[in-house]
Amino acid sequence: MRVVRHISELRPTPSTGLVPTMGALHDGHRALLRAARAENELVVASLFVNPAQFDERSDLAAYPRDEERDAAIAEAEGVDVLFAPEADELYPPDFATWVEPELTGLEGEARPGHFRGVATVCLKLFNLVRPERAYFGQKDAQQAAVLRRLVRDLNVPVEIRVLPTVRDDDGLALSSRNARLSADERSRALGLPRALHDASGADDPVAEARALLDLLHPDYVEVVDLGEALVLAAAVRVGETRLIDNVLLEGVIA
Amino acid sequence: MRVVRHISELRPTPSTGLVPTMGALHDGHRALLRAARAENELVVASLFVNPAQFDERSDLAAYPRDEERDAAIAEAEGVDVLFAPEADELYPPDFATWVEPELTGLEGEARPGHFRGVATVCLKLFNLVRPERAYFGQKDAQQAAVLRRLVRDLNVPVEIRVLPTVRDDDGLALSSRNARLSADERSRALGLPRALHDASGADDPVAEARALLDLLHPDYVEVVDLGEALVLAAAVRVGETRLIDNVLLEGVIA
Repeated sequence: MRVVRHISELRPTPSTGLVPTMGALHDGHRALLRAARAENELVVASLFVNPAQFDERSDLAAYPRDEERDAAIAEAEGVDVLFAPEADELYPPDFATWVEPELTGLEGEARPGHFRGVATVCLKLFNLVRPERAYFGQKDAQQAAVLRRLVRDLNVPVEIRVLPTVRDDDGLALSSRNARLSADERSRALGLPRALHDASGADDPVAEARALLDLLHPDYVEVVDLGEALVLAAAVRVGETRLIDNVLLEGVIA
Repeated sequence: MRVVRHISELRPTPSTGLVPTMGALHDGHRALLRAARAENELVVASLFVNPAQFDERSDLAAYPRDEERDAAIAEAEGVDVLFAPEADELYPPDFATWVEPELTGLEGEARPGHFRGVATVCLKLFNLVRPERAYFGQKDAQQAAVLRRLVRDLNVPVEIRVLPTVRDDDGLALSSRNARLSADERSRALGLPRALHDASGADDPVAEARALLDLLHPDYVEVVDLGEALVLAAAVRVGETRLIDNVLLEGVIA
Protein backbone atom coordinates (compact mmCIF):
# COMPACT_ATOMS: atom_id res chain seq x y z
CA MET A 1 0.00 0.00 0.00
CA ARG A 2 1.34 3.41 -0.99
CA VAL A 3 0.68 6.29 1.45
CA VAL A 4 0.29 9.57 -0.42
CA ARG A 5 0.42 12.97 1.30
CA HIS A 6 0.48 15.29 -1.70
CA ILE A 7 -1.91 15.88 -4.57
CA SER A 8 0.98 15.85 -7.03
CA GLU A 9 1.72 12.19 -6.16
CA LEU A 10 -1.76 10.96 -7.15
CA ARG A 11 -1.95 9.19 -10.50
CA PRO A 12 -5.55 8.86 -11.74
CA THR A 13 -6.07 5.37 -13.16
CA PRO A 14 -9.03 3.72 -14.93
CA SER A 15 -11.21 1.31 -12.92
CA THR A 16 -10.49 2.92 -9.57
CA GLY A 17 -12.76 2.62 -6.55
CA LEU A 18 -12.57 5.42 -3.98
CA VAL A 19 -13.51 5.06 -0.31
CA PRO A 20 -13.46 8.51 1.32
CA THR A 21 -13.05 8.27 5.11
CA MET A 22 -12.25 10.45 8.09
CA GLY A 23 -10.30 7.58 9.65
CA ALA A 24 -11.32 5.86 12.92
CA LEU A 25 -12.05 2.90 10.66
CA HIS A 26 -14.56 0.30 11.86
CA ASP A 27 -16.38 -2.66 10.30
CA GLY A 28 -18.66 -0.29 8.36
CA HIS A 29 -15.60 1.09 6.58
CA ARG A 30 -14.27 -2.43 6.08
CA ALA A 31 -17.47 -3.35 4.25
CA LEU A 32 -16.94 -0.36 1.92
CA LEU A 33 -13.28 -1.26 1.35
CA ARG A 34 -14.20 -4.89 0.54
CA ALA A 35 -16.83 -3.85 -1.96
CA ALA A 36 -14.36 -1.45 -3.58
CA ARG A 37 -11.74 -4.23 -3.69
CA ALA A 38 -14.21 -6.63 -5.35
CA GLU A 39 -15.49 -4.16 -7.94
CA ASN A 40 -12.38 -2.24 -9.10
CA GLU A 41 -8.83 -2.85 -10.28
CA LEU A 42 -7.37 -0.15 -8.04
CA VAL A 43 -8.64 0.88 -4.60
CA VAL A 44 -7.90 4.32 -3.18
CA ALA A 45 -8.96 5.18 0.37
CA SER A 46 -8.71 8.70 1.70
CA LEU A 47 -8.01 9.50 5.32
CA PHE A 48 -8.86 13.13 5.98
CA VAL A 49 -10.66 14.69 8.93
CA ASN A 50 -12.32 17.40 6.84
CA PRO A 51 -12.46 20.57 8.93
CA ALA A 52 -15.00 22.13 6.53
CA GLN A 53 -17.74 19.67 7.47
CA PHE A 54 -17.64 20.14 11.24
CA ASP A 55 -20.33 22.52 12.37
CA GLU A 56 -19.12 22.21 15.98
CA ARG A 57 -15.52 22.98 16.84
CA SER A 58 -15.61 20.65 19.86
CA ASP A 59 -16.68 17.76 17.61
CA LEU A 60 -13.67 18.40 15.33
CA ALA A 61 -11.31 18.53 18.30
CA ALA A 62 -12.76 15.32 19.80
CA TYR A 63 -12.68 13.39 16.52
CA PRO A 64 -10.48 10.31 17.04
CA ARG A 65 -7.22 10.18 15.05
CA ASP A 66 -4.99 7.08 14.85
CA GLU A 67 -3.38 6.90 11.42
CA GLU A 68 -1.20 3.89 12.19
CA ARG A 69 -4.19 1.75 13.15
CA ASP A 70 -6.25 3.02 10.18
CA ALA A 71 -3.39 2.36 7.74
CA ALA A 72 -3.07 -1.22 9.03
CA ILE A 73 -6.80 -1.82 8.49
CA ALA A 74 -6.70 -0.29 5.02
CA GLU A 75 -3.71 -2.42 4.07
CA ALA A 76 -5.39 -5.58 5.42
CA GLU A 77 -8.44 -4.83 3.26
CA GLY A 78 -6.33 -4.57 0.12
CA VAL A 79 -6.19 -0.80 -0.36
CA ASP A 80 -3.61 0.15 -3.00
CA VAL A 81 -3.27 3.86 -2.25
CA LEU A 82 -4.01 5.62 1.04
CA PHE A 83 -4.39 9.35 0.44
CA ALA A 84 -3.77 11.09 3.78
CA PRO A 85 -3.11 14.78 3.14
CA GLU A 86 -2.66 17.59 5.64
CA ALA A 87 -5.53 20.07 5.82
CA ASP A 88 -3.71 22.82 3.90
CA GLU A 89 -3.07 20.46 1.00
CA LEU A 90 -6.82 20.42 0.32
CA TYR A 91 -7.61 23.89 1.69
CA PRO A 92 -4.83 26.37 0.89
CA PRO A 93 -5.08 29.63 2.86
CA ASP A 94 -6.98 31.56 0.17
CA PHE A 95 -9.40 28.74 -0.65
CA ALA A 96 -12.68 30.35 -1.80
CA THR A 97 -14.82 28.03 -3.96
CA TRP A 98 -17.54 25.90 -2.35
CA VAL A 99 -20.04 23.35 -3.52
CA GLU A 100 -23.40 24.30 -2.03
CA PRO A 101 -26.14 21.64 -1.99
CA GLU A 102 -29.55 23.27 -1.54
CA LEU A 103 -31.63 20.25 -0.54
CA THR A 104 -30.12 18.75 2.60
CA GLY A 105 -33.19 17.82 4.61
CA LEU A 106 -33.52 18.11 8.37
CA GLU A 107 -30.00 16.77 8.95
CA GLY A 108 -28.77 19.77 6.93
CA GLU A 109 -30.91 22.16 8.97
CA ALA A 110 -29.51 20.70 12.17
CA ARG A 111 -25.90 21.11 10.97
CA PRO A 112 -25.46 24.40 9.08
CA GLY A 113 -22.51 24.23 6.67
CA HIS A 114 -21.97 20.50 7.19
CA PHE A 115 -23.09 19.35 3.75
CA ARG A 116 -21.31 22.23 2.05
CA GLY A 117 -18.11 20.84 3.59
CA VAL A 118 -18.98 17.25 2.64
CA ALA A 119 -19.93 18.18 -0.93
CA THR A 120 -16.85 20.33 -1.46
CA VAL A 121 -14.32 17.79 -0.19
CA CYS A 122 -15.98 14.92 -2.05
CA LEU A 123 -15.97 16.81 -5.35
CA LYS A 124 -12.29 17.61 -4.77
CA LEU A 125 -11.54 13.92 -4.11
CA PHE A 126 -13.52 12.86 -7.19
CA ASN A 127 -11.50 15.29 -9.32
CA LEU A 128 -8.19 14.25 -7.78
CA VAL A 129 -8.69 10.47 -7.87
CA ARG A 130 -11.15 10.29 -10.80
CA PRO A 131 -12.71 7.04 -9.57
CA GLU A 132 -15.26 5.03 -11.50
CA ARG A 133 -17.10 4.29 -8.24
CA ALA A 134 -17.11 5.92 -4.81
CA TYR A 135 -18.37 4.13 -1.70
CA PHE A 136 -20.48 5.47 1.14
CA GLY A 137 -22.47 3.93 3.99
CA GLN A 138 -26.24 3.96 4.27
CA LYS A 139 -25.86 5.21 7.86
CA ASP A 140 -25.14 8.70 6.56
CA ALA A 141 -28.27 8.65 4.42
CA GLN A 142 -28.58 12.39 3.83
CA GLN A 143 -24.90 12.48 2.82
CA ALA A 144 -25.56 9.74 0.26
CA ALA A 145 -28.61 11.63 -1.03
CA VAL A 146 -26.63 14.89 -1.32
CA LEU A 147 -23.77 13.20 -3.17
CA ARG A 148 -26.08 11.32 -5.56
CA ARG A 149 -27.67 14.66 -6.41
CA LEU A 150 -24.27 16.38 -6.67
CA VAL A 151 -22.92 13.95 -9.26
CA ARG A 152 -26.14 14.23 -11.25
CA ASP A 153 -26.40 18.05 -11.04
CA LEU A 154 -22.72 18.75 -11.72
CA ASN A 155 -22.34 15.90 -14.25
CA VAL A 156 -19.50 14.21 -12.37
CA PRO A 157 -18.55 10.93 -14.05
CA VAL A 158 -18.62 8.71 -10.96
CA GLU A 159 -21.07 6.12 -9.61
CA ILE A 160 -22.07 6.66 -5.98
CA ARG A 161 -22.32 3.21 -4.36
CA VAL A 162 -24.25 3.09 -1.08
CA LEU A 163 -23.81 0.01 1.10
CA PRO A 164 -26.02 -1.20 3.98
CA THR A 165 -25.32 0.03 7.51
CA VAL A 166 -23.19 -2.33 9.60
CA ARG A 167 -24.42 -2.80 13.19
CA ASP A 168 -23.03 -4.14 16.45
CA ASP A 169 -24.68 -7.28 17.84
CA ASP A 170 -26.93 -5.13 20.00
CA GLY A 171 -28.23 -3.26 16.94
CA LEU A 172 -26.36 0.05 17.31
CA ALA A 173 -25.10 1.34 13.95
CA LEU A 174 -21.31 1.46 13.89
CA SER A 175 -19.91 4.97 14.25
CA SER A 176 -16.62 6.38 15.44
CA ARG A 177 -18.71 8.49 17.83
CA ASN A 178 -20.00 5.37 19.68
CA ALA A 179 -16.69 5.23 21.58
CA ARG A 180 -17.76 8.37 23.44
CA LEU A 181 -20.82 6.70 24.98
CA SER A 182 -20.80 5.52 28.61
CA ALA A 183 -22.36 2.09 29.31
CA ASP A 184 -25.55 3.77 30.47
CA GLU A 185 -25.61 6.09 27.44
CA ARG A 186 -25.09 3.16 25.14
CA SER A 187 -28.09 1.30 26.50
CA ARG A 188 -30.19 4.45 26.06
CA ALA A 189 -28.80 4.89 22.53
CA LEU A 190 -30.21 1.48 21.57
CA GLY A 191 -33.62 3.09 21.66
CA LEU A 192 -32.77 4.77 18.33
CA PRO A 193 -32.37 1.69 16.09
CA ARG A 194 -35.18 -0.05 17.99
CA ALA A 195 -37.65 2.80 17.42
CA LEU A 196 -36.75 3.13 13.73
CA HIS A 197 -37.09 -0.62 13.23
CA ASP A 198 -40.42 -0.80 15.05
CA ALA A 199 -41.80 2.25 13.22
CA SER A 200 -40.77 1.15 9.74
CA GLY A 201 -43.90 -0.97 9.23
CA ALA A 202 -46.36 1.63 10.52
CA ASP A 203 -48.85 3.49 8.31
CA ASP A 204 -47.14 6.75 9.23
CA PRO A 205 -43.57 5.72 10.06
CA VAL A 206 -42.42 9.27 10.84
CA ALA A 207 -45.17 9.88 13.41
CA GLU A 208 -44.68 6.41 14.90
CA ALA A 209 -40.90 6.84 15.22
CA ARG A 210 -41.38 10.27 16.75
CA ALA A 211 -43.70 8.77 19.36
CA LEU A 212 -41.36 5.87 20.10
CA LEU A 213 -38.34 8.22 20.35
CA ASP A 214 -40.13 10.64 22.65
CA LEU A 215 -37.84 10.06 25.64
CA LEU A 216 -34.71 10.55 23.50
CA HIS A 217 -35.92 14.00 22.30
CA PRO A 218 -35.01 13.45 18.61
CA ASP A 219 -33.57 16.37 16.60
CA TYR A 220 -35.82 15.18 13.79
CA VAL A 221 -37.41 12.16 12.13
CA GLU A 222 -37.81 12.18 8.35
CA VAL A 223 -37.91 10.10 5.19
CA VAL A 224 -34.79 10.43 3.00
CA ASP A 225 -34.84 9.54 -0.70
CA LEU A 226 -31.67 7.75 -1.83
CA GLY A 227 -32.90 7.23 -5.38
CA GLU A 228 -33.06 3.43 -5.29
CA ALA A 229 -34.52 3.41 -1.77
CA LEU A 230 -36.45 5.39 0.83
CA VAL A 231 -35.19 5.29 4.41
CA LEU A 232 -36.64 6.43 7.72
CA ALA A 233 -33.95 8.57 9.39
CA ALA A 234 -33.57 10.22 12.77
CA ALA A 235 -30.99 11.99 14.94
CA VAL A 236 -30.84 11.97 18.73
CA ARG A 237 -28.46 13.34 21.31
CA VAL A 238 -27.42 10.96 24.10
CA GLY A 239 -25.45 12.90 26.69
CA GLU A 240 -22.90 14.91 24.71
CA THR A 241 -23.00 12.59 21.71
CA ARG A 242 -25.15 13.11 18.63
CA LEU A 243 -26.16 9.89 16.87
CA ILE A 244 -27.92 9.34 13.54
CA ASP A 245 -29.43 6.20 12.11
CA ASN A 246 -31.93 5.07 9.47
CA VAL A 247 -33.76 1.95 8.29
CA LEU A 248 -35.04 0.89 4.90
CA LEU A 249 -38.68 1.72 4.09
CA GLU A 250 -38.80 0.92 0.37
CA GLY A 251 -36.41 -0.29 -2.30
CA VAL A 252 -33.03 -1.98 -2.00
CA ILE A 253 -29.61 -0.96 -0.73
CA ALA A 254 -26.82 -3.31 -1.78
CA MET B 1 -19.31 19.93 -37.45
CA ARG B 2 -21.62 17.86 -35.30
CA VAL B 3 -24.40 19.71 -33.46
CA VAL B 4 -25.16 18.04 -30.13
CA ARG B 5 -28.31 18.75 -28.10
CA HIS B 6 -28.09 16.05 -25.45
CA ILE B 7 -25.54 15.24 -22.79
CA SER B 8 -25.69 11.56 -23.70
CA GLU B 9 -24.34 12.32 -27.19
CA LEU B 10 -21.13 13.91 -25.89
CA ARG B 11 -18.04 11.69 -26.15
CA PRO B 12 -15.16 13.01 -24.01
CA THR B 13 -11.92 12.76 -25.98
CA PRO B 14 -8.27 13.46 -25.04
CA SER B 15 -6.72 16.74 -26.27
CA THR B 16 -9.99 18.62 -26.45
CA GLY B 17 -10.25 22.41 -26.31
CA LEU B 18 -13.53 23.85 -25.03
CA VAL B 19 -14.85 27.32 -25.89
CA PRO B 20 -17.93 28.03 -23.74
CA THR B 21 -20.14 30.73 -25.29
CA MET B 22 -23.61 32.20 -24.96
CA GLY B 23 -23.78 32.63 -28.73
CA ALA B 24 -23.97 36.03 -30.48
CA LEU B 25 -20.47 35.20 -31.66
CA HIS B 26 -18.17 38.06 -32.61
CA ASP B 27 -14.48 38.43 -33.41
CA GLY B 28 -13.60 37.99 -29.72
CA HIS B 29 -15.11 34.50 -29.85
CA ARG B 30 -13.40 33.85 -33.17
CA ALA B 31 -10.04 34.54 -31.51
CA LEU B 32 -10.87 31.97 -28.81
CA LEU B 33 -11.99 29.40 -31.40
CA ARG B 34 -8.81 29.91 -33.43
CA ALA B 35 -6.59 29.44 -30.39
CA ALA B 36 -8.53 26.30 -29.46
CA ARG B 37 -8.18 25.02 -33.04
CA ALA B 38 -4.41 25.62 -33.00
CA GLU B 39 -3.78 24.05 -29.59
CA ASN B 40 -6.02 20.94 -29.52
CA GLU B 41 -6.93 17.92 -31.62
CA LEU B 42 -10.67 18.34 -31.03
CA VAL B 43 -12.54 21.63 -30.57
CA VAL B 44 -15.86 21.74 -28.74
CA ALA B 45 -17.81 25.01 -28.56
CA SER B 46 -20.87 25.35 -26.38
CA LEU B 47 -23.78 27.59 -27.25
CA PHE B 48 -25.93 28.08 -24.17
CA VAL B 49 -27.57 31.23 -22.84
CA ASN B 50 -27.16 30.23 -19.20
CA PRO B 51 -30.22 31.46 -17.29
CA ALA B 52 -28.45 30.93 -13.94
CA GLN B 53 -25.94 33.72 -14.59
CA PHE B 54 -28.41 36.49 -15.42
CA ASP B 55 -29.06 38.66 -12.41
CA GLU B 56 -31.57 40.74 -14.39
CA ARG B 57 -34.49 39.05 -16.10
CA SER B 58 -34.68 41.82 -18.75
CA ASP B 59 -31.05 41.17 -19.68
CA LEU B 60 -31.80 37.46 -20.22
CA ALA B 61 -34.86 38.27 -22.35
CA ALA B 62 -32.91 40.81 -24.43
CA TYR B 63 -29.93 38.51 -24.99
CA PRO B 64 -29.53 38.02 -28.77
CA ARG B 65 -30.10 34.47 -30.10
CA ASP B 66 -29.30 33.40 -33.67
CA GLU B 67 -28.15 29.81 -33.69
CA GLU B 68 -27.92 29.50 -37.45
CA ARG B 69 -25.50 32.42 -37.71
CA ASP B 70 -23.48 31.21 -34.68
CA ALA B 71 -23.26 27.67 -36.07
CA ALA B 72 -21.96 29.01 -39.41
CA ILE B 73 -19.23 30.99 -37.61
CA ALA B 74 -18.28 28.02 -35.44
CA GLU B 75 -18.06 25.76 -38.47
CA ALA B 76 -15.96 28.32 -40.37
CA GLU B 77 -13.53 28.43 -37.43
CA GLY B 78 -13.08 24.66 -37.47
CA VAL B 79 -15.22 23.64 -34.52
CA ASP B 80 -15.75 19.85 -34.44
CA VAL B 81 -18.64 19.67 -31.98
CA LEU B 82 -21.17 22.40 -31.21
CA PHE B 83 -22.93 21.61 -27.92
CA ALA B 84 -26.23 23.53 -27.95
CA PRO B 85 -28.52 22.08 -25.27
CA GLU B 86 -31.92 23.30 -24.11
CA ALA B 87 -31.96 24.85 -20.63
CA ASP B 88 -33.59 21.82 -18.96
CA GLU B 89 -30.85 19.55 -20.28
CA LEU B 90 -28.38 21.35 -17.98
CA TYR B 91 -30.87 22.37 -15.28
CA PRO B 92 -33.49 19.67 -14.71
CA PRO B 93 -36.49 20.85 -12.65
CA ASP B 94 -35.11 19.64 -9.29
CA PHE B 95 -31.57 20.94 -9.85
CA ALA B 96 -30.13 21.83 -6.43
CA THR B 97 -26.30 21.84 -6.36
CA TRP B 98 -24.41 25.08 -6.95
CA VAL B 99 -20.78 26.11 -7.15
CA GLU B 100 -20.37 29.19 -5.00
CA PRO B 101 -17.25 31.34 -5.52
CA GLU B 102 -16.61 33.54 -2.49
CA LEU B 103 -14.17 36.05 -3.94
CA THR B 104 -15.85 37.75 -6.88
CA GLY B 105 -14.74 41.36 -6.46
CA LEU B 106 -16.83 44.41 -7.18
CA GLU B 107 -18.27 42.88 -10.36
CA GLY B 108 -19.66 40.11 -8.14
CA GLU B 109 -21.09 42.66 -5.71
CA ALA B 110 -22.78 44.46 -8.59
CA ARG B 111 -24.34 41.26 -9.93
CA PRO B 112 -25.54 39.01 -7.08
CA GLY B 113 -25.70 35.37 -8.14
CA HIS B 114 -23.99 36.00 -11.47
CA PHE B 115 -20.73 34.22 -10.70
CA ARG B 116 -22.53 31.36 -8.98
CA GLY B 117 -24.29 30.79 -12.31
CA VAL B 118 -21.05 31.12 -14.29
CA ALA B 119 -19.10 28.82 -11.97
CA THR B 120 -21.82 26.18 -11.90
CA VAL B 121 -22.35 25.98 -15.65
CA CYS B 122 -18.61 26.01 -16.38
CA LEU B 123 -17.95 23.16 -13.93
CA LYS B 124 -20.78 21.21 -15.57
CA LEU B 125 -19.28 21.83 -19.02
CA PHE B 126 -15.81 20.84 -17.79
CA ASN B 127 -17.23 17.58 -16.42
CA LEU B 128 -19.27 16.88 -19.55
CA VAL B 129 -16.60 17.68 -22.16
CA ARG B 130 -13.48 16.97 -20.03
CA PRO B 131 -11.33 19.38 -22.03
CA GLU B 132 -7.60 19.77 -21.57
CA ARG B 133 -7.94 23.53 -22.09
CA ALA B 134 -10.88 25.93 -21.85
CA TYR B 135 -10.82 29.39 -23.46
CA PHE B 136 -12.10 32.69 -22.09
CA GLY B 137 -11.66 36.33 -23.01
CA GLN B 138 -9.77 38.89 -20.96
CA LYS B 139 -12.76 41.24 -21.29
CA ASP B 140 -14.60 39.25 -18.61
CA ALA B 141 -11.65 39.55 -16.26
CA GLN B 142 -13.45 38.71 -13.03
CA GLN B 143 -14.95 35.66 -14.72
CA ALA B 144 -11.47 34.50 -15.69
CA ALA B 145 -10.22 35.09 -12.14
CA VAL B 146 -13.17 33.17 -10.64
CA LEU B 147 -12.65 30.21 -13.00
CA ARG B 148 -8.88 30.10 -12.42
CA ARG B 149 -9.60 29.92 -8.70
CA LEU B 150 -12.37 27.35 -9.21
CA VAL B 151 -10.17 24.89 -11.05
CA ARG B 152 -7.46 25.29 -8.44
CA ASP B 153 -9.80 25.06 -5.41
CA LEU B 154 -11.86 22.15 -6.73
CA ASN B 155 -8.88 20.39 -8.39
CA VAL B 156 -10.45 20.33 -11.84
CA PRO B 157 -7.98 18.94 -14.42
CA VAL B 158 -8.32 21.72 -17.01
CA GLU B 159 -6.13 24.65 -18.04
CA ILE B 160 -7.95 28.00 -18.14
CA ARG B 161 -6.59 29.92 -21.14
CA VAL B 162 -7.31 33.66 -21.15
CA LEU B 163 -6.87 35.53 -24.43
CA PRO B 164 -6.54 39.31 -24.98
CA THR B 165 -9.65 41.41 -25.49
CA VAL B 166 -10.54 42.07 -29.13
CA ARG B 167 -11.60 45.66 -29.86
CA ASP B 168 -13.35 47.50 -32.67
CA ASP B 169 -11.31 50.09 -34.57
CA ASP B 170 -12.62 52.84 -32.29
CA GLY B 171 -11.34 50.98 -29.20
CA LEU B 172 -14.61 49.60 -27.81
CA ALA B 173 -14.21 46.03 -26.51
CA LEU B 174 -16.34 43.63 -28.55
CA SER B 175 -19.48 42.50 -26.73
CA SER B 176 -22.82 41.20 -27.86
CA ARG B 177 -24.32 44.00 -25.79
CA ASN B 178 -22.73 46.70 -28.02
CA ALA B 179 -25.52 46.13 -30.55
CA ARG B 180 -27.92 47.74 -28.09
CA LEU B 181 -26.08 51.09 -28.12
CA SER B 182 -27.39 54.04 -30.13
CA ALA B 183 -24.83 56.07 -32.09
CA ASP B 184 -24.76 58.68 -29.35
CA GLU B 185 -24.45 56.04 -26.62
CA ARG B 186 -21.64 54.38 -28.49
CA SER B 187 -19.61 57.56 -28.64
CA ARG B 188 -20.14 58.07 -24.90
CA ALA B 189 -19.20 54.39 -24.27
CA LEU B 190 -15.79 55.06 -25.82
CA GLY B 191 -14.95 57.00 -22.68
CA LEU B 192 -14.59 53.63 -20.88
CA PRO B 193 -11.64 52.13 -22.81
CA ARG B 194 -10.08 55.61 -23.14
CA ALA B 195 -10.18 56.25 -19.38
CA LEU B 196 -8.80 52.80 -18.53
CA HIS B 197 -6.01 53.19 -21.07
CA ASP B 198 -5.10 56.69 -19.88
CA ALA B 199 -5.20 55.67 -16.21
CA SER B 200 -3.12 52.51 -16.59
CA GLY B 201 0.19 54.36 -16.31
CA ALA B 202 -0.79 56.50 -13.29
CA ASP B 203 0.66 56.03 -9.80
CA ASP B 204 -2.82 55.20 -8.53
CA PRO B 205 -4.60 53.79 -11.59
CA VAL B 206 -7.86 53.14 -9.73
CA ALA B 207 -8.18 56.73 -8.49
CA GLU B 208 -7.12 58.10 -11.87
CA ALA B 209 -9.65 55.96 -13.78
CA ARG B 210 -12.36 56.91 -11.33
CA ALA B 211 -11.64 60.59 -11.96
CA LEU B 212 -11.55 60.15 -15.74
CA LEU B 213 -14.79 58.12 -15.70
CA ASP B 214 -16.59 60.63 -13.51
CA LEU B 215 -19.17 61.62 -16.14
CA LEU B 216 -20.00 57.96 -16.89
CA HIS B 217 -20.79 57.24 -13.18
CA PRO B 218 -18.87 53.93 -13.03
CA ASP B 219 -20.33 51.04 -10.99
CA TYR B 220 -16.79 50.45 -9.80
CA VAL B 221 -13.12 50.62 -10.74
CA GLU B 222 -10.80 47.94 -9.35
CA VAL B 223 -7.68 45.88 -9.95
CA VAL B 224 -8.37 42.21 -10.79
CA ASP B 225 -5.71 39.53 -10.35
CA LEU B 226 -5.69 36.95 -13.16
CA GLY B 227 -2.71 35.05 -11.80
CA GLU B 228 -0.31 35.80 -14.66
CA ALA B 229 -1.49 39.42 -14.92
CA LEU B 230 -3.10 42.32 -13.09
CA VAL B 231 -5.75 44.31 -14.94
CA LEU B 232 -7.53 47.60 -14.24
CA ALA B 233 -11.26 46.90 -14.60
CA ALA B 234 -14.40 49.03 -14.56
CA ALA B 235 -18.12 48.83 -15.31
CA VAL B 236 -20.32 51.66 -16.55
CA ARG B 237 -23.92 51.98 -17.61
CA VAL B 238 -24.60 53.85 -20.85
CA GLY B 239 -28.33 54.34 -21.25
CA GLU B 240 -29.85 50.92 -20.53
CA THR B 241 -26.67 49.02 -21.37
CA ARG B 242 -24.09 47.91 -18.84
CA LEU B 243 -20.55 47.66 -20.22
CA ILE B 244 -17.38 46.27 -18.66
CA ASP B 245 -13.80 46.58 -19.79
CA ASN B 246 -10.25 46.26 -18.47
CA VAL B 247 -6.66 46.93 -19.48
CA LEU B 248 -3.38 45.28 -18.57
CA LEU B 249 -1.43 46.77 -15.65
CA GLU B 250 1.21 44.09 -15.07
CA GLY B 251 2.14 40.73 -16.55
CA VAL B 252 1.17 39.15 -19.84
CA ILE B 253 -2.06 37.87 -21.36
CA ALA B 254 -1.53 35.69 -24.43
